Amino acid sequence: MGVAVIEASMTKFGQRDAWLRDLLAEAGEECLSDAPIDNDDVEHLYVSNMSSGEFEGQTGVMNWLAHDLGLLPAYSERVDQTSSSGGAGIYEAWQSIASGASEMTLLVGGEKMTHKTTPEATDIIASITHPDEYKHGVTLPSFAGLTARHYLERFDAPRESLAKVAVKNHRNGVDNPNAQFQKEITTETALESPIVADPLRLYDFCPITDGSAAMLFTTEERAAELTDDYAVVSGIGGATDTHVVHERDDPTVMGGVVESSDQAYEMAGLGPDDLDVAELHDMFTILEFLQLEGIGVAEQGEAWELAMDGYTDRDGELPINTSGGLKSKGHPLGASGVAQGVEIYEQLVGEAGPRQVEADVGLACNVGGFGNCVITTIMEAAE
Amino acid sequence: MGVAVIEASMTKFGQRDAWLRDLLAEAGEECLSDAPIDNDDVEHLYVSNMSSGEFEGQTGVMNWLAHDLGLLPAYSERVDQTSSSGGAGIYEAWQSIASGASEMTLLVGGEKMTHKTTPEATDIIASITHPDEYKHGVTLPSFAGLTARHYLERFDAPRESLAKVAVKNHRNGVDNPNAQFQKEITTETALESPIVADPLRLYDFCPITDGSAAMLFTTEERAAELTDDYAVVSGIGGATDTHVVHERDDPTVMGGVVESSDQAYEMAGLGPDDLDVAELHDMFTILEFLQLEGIGVAEQGEAWELAMDGYTDRDGELPINTSGGLKSKGHPLGASGVAQGVEIYEQLVGEAGPRQVEADVGLACNVGGFGNCVITTIMEAAE
Repeated sequence: MGVAVIEASMTKFGQRDAWLRDLLAEAGEECLSDAPIDNDDVEHLYVSNMSSGEFEGQTGVMNWLAHDLGLLPAYSERVDQTSSSGGAGIYEAWQSIASGASEMTLLVGGEKMTHKTTPEATDIIASITHPDEYKHGVTLPSFAGLTARHYLERFDAPRESLAKVAVKNHRNGVDNPNAQFQKEITTETALESPIVADPLRLYDFCPITDGSAAMLFTTEERAAELTDDYAVVSGIGGATDTHVVHERDDPTVMGGVVESSDQAYEMAGLGPDDLDVAELHDMFTILEFLQLEGIGVAEQGEAWELAMDGYTDRDGELPINTSGGLKSKGHPLGASGVAQGVEIYEQLVGEAGPRQVEADVGLACNVGGFGNCVITTIMEAAE
Repeated sequence: MGVAVIEASMTKFGQRDAWLRDLLAEAGEECLSDAPIDNDDVEHLYVSNMSSGEFEGQTGVMNWLAHDLGLLPAYSERVDQTSSSGGAGIYEAWQSIASGASEMTLLVGGEKMTHKTTPEATDIIASITHPDEYKHGVTLPSFAGLTARHYLERFDAPRESLAKVAVKNHRNGVDNPNAQFQKEITTETALESPIVADPLRLYDFCPITDGSAAMLFTTEERAAELTDDYAVVSGIGGATDTHVVHERDDPTVMGGVVESSDQAYEMAGLGPDDLDVAELHDMFTILEFLQLEGIGVAEQGEAWELAMDGYTDRDGELPINTSGGLKSKGHPLGASGVAQGVEIYEQLVGEAGPRQVEADVGLACNVGGFGNCVITTIMEAAE
């Protein structure tokens, strides 16, 4: 059964004076109030969230949200796949509709993080990784530093190419009113910012963020009855890679990206050349290169050239992270994959405002851990 | 598409000298090694778990398990619905097969709890409930005490009827080698045990438990090719009730049980009279009555009579909790709903050993929070 997205919304991302419950309700309410349905129509509610227990001492947030949004007795469940929880939520929402379990499914992803100190938040996030690696001090940022050094040296890529990713995504974020940072930066600013995990510097990293995003799914048939502005999830796939990162054959190949995008392309009957726009998981700038290569847009070791020559700019051949990406939009773990879906939806239905590009086919790639689990979603504009 | 269960297993429940990772792998490995498939055949892995982050400081356990079981690059995801996470995992596994997203799905539920002190574990579990109720001291056991007093007085039920539930489930547990307590008790023992939440006493409560359970799902068509010993998930439903317990109209009606079982019966084309065996979520003895009424086996206020007259005994009209239930088998949160499914599967395929009853249709009801979310599953023996 074809699965469609008929509405999407997100909160302002950033440092928010609100708890997770409030953030989830804000995105969920906006999504429902803009949709051509009654709240009673929602049969399943999925909440993408990694760590409400660890961040806030509250679990059961999905039951709470179902209650707050007036959706009872709708089914409610929390989906966790660490930093790809949002993408996993899209997959669950898709399965709920495609299986016939639900005819109308609301997905809300969110995380509340900024009330923790950076070391506290880092510790919670690092619980994703294998403890044998973590006890040696290897956090996600340090994996990124090690991988970036390897990539730059092996493929003779200039350090500037990583800075270009940050500059591009910050420029896109200026036009996204919901982005955490609406601030242009220069290549020099990025290259001269403080070292965090050599060779990566401050502007190679996404921030810690509070925020929430929502999408509403139904069957393609029902969508066509309800609205003209809908998108279809034409391909989706998910995959897991080794939990111990150092066991991977090649540190520059994200196996989960390759496998999940292969599944999504096959299901959609499309390939990388068909893409008009994509949101990639730029938690660290180097990841944008690895994903461009993993989804088949560039050959191994060549994605950096796309950043250098403007191919991935908003007015380039394949605009990447028109939303601002995790880099400037922010990265509230459970929300990020959903917010990727929100951006692709808005691009496909023509609601992206000053960020609008011409797009009939869009892809979102959401990465958990350091590629430990990945979801790739392909969406197309309704015919 | 019809969804079948072709194998099931569980670890010994109790105080285990192992971490969650080890427990999940133990049940998963046993399930896979007994199944007529290769590990490579598994396309999706769901891990039902409420709080590995809070109990162990580890998240990402589903990626880890996919790695440990040699399932890469299978999709892996954690499903959380508090104490009904196991039932939610069954629902997700069902959706993954019914939607065509996966042709072979492994579900493993587990929790590691006993390394925490009882107050610490209670605090983690209470994070399920609404903080406005919890700050007034209302934990799940106290909800049970309040509800039990109301039930006994309103329906003129004898205190002994609750003790009978404990006695029955302990007797069943004696024949389950994986139960935490393989120990018969008398009505007097139950009635004279220490008060925990008046009128409920120690033997009205399930223990804190470590353990894991697994089920393997595929299409009905593929199941028939692979084995004669399979069961079919013919009905399943899930529902949410108010997150604030005191907002419910009638404290003796679990709305989520009523709604989810209605959905499951409708899908299966069956009713309460068709059941041959059932596993109910007896976290507290009083819950067995509320669920017997919620699933339509008894009228409101009359389930206590079924306990008194042996109707729900193993040799009675409708055996309830032949596994020993949460009461004697134990309640490792994320595992419990899966372990209910394991018992129903074993009863339907004739692998329940000394606990075996005659059964072609079985039901499992898994309750999260204090009925905040509920999953009901109906399984039938293959034709």
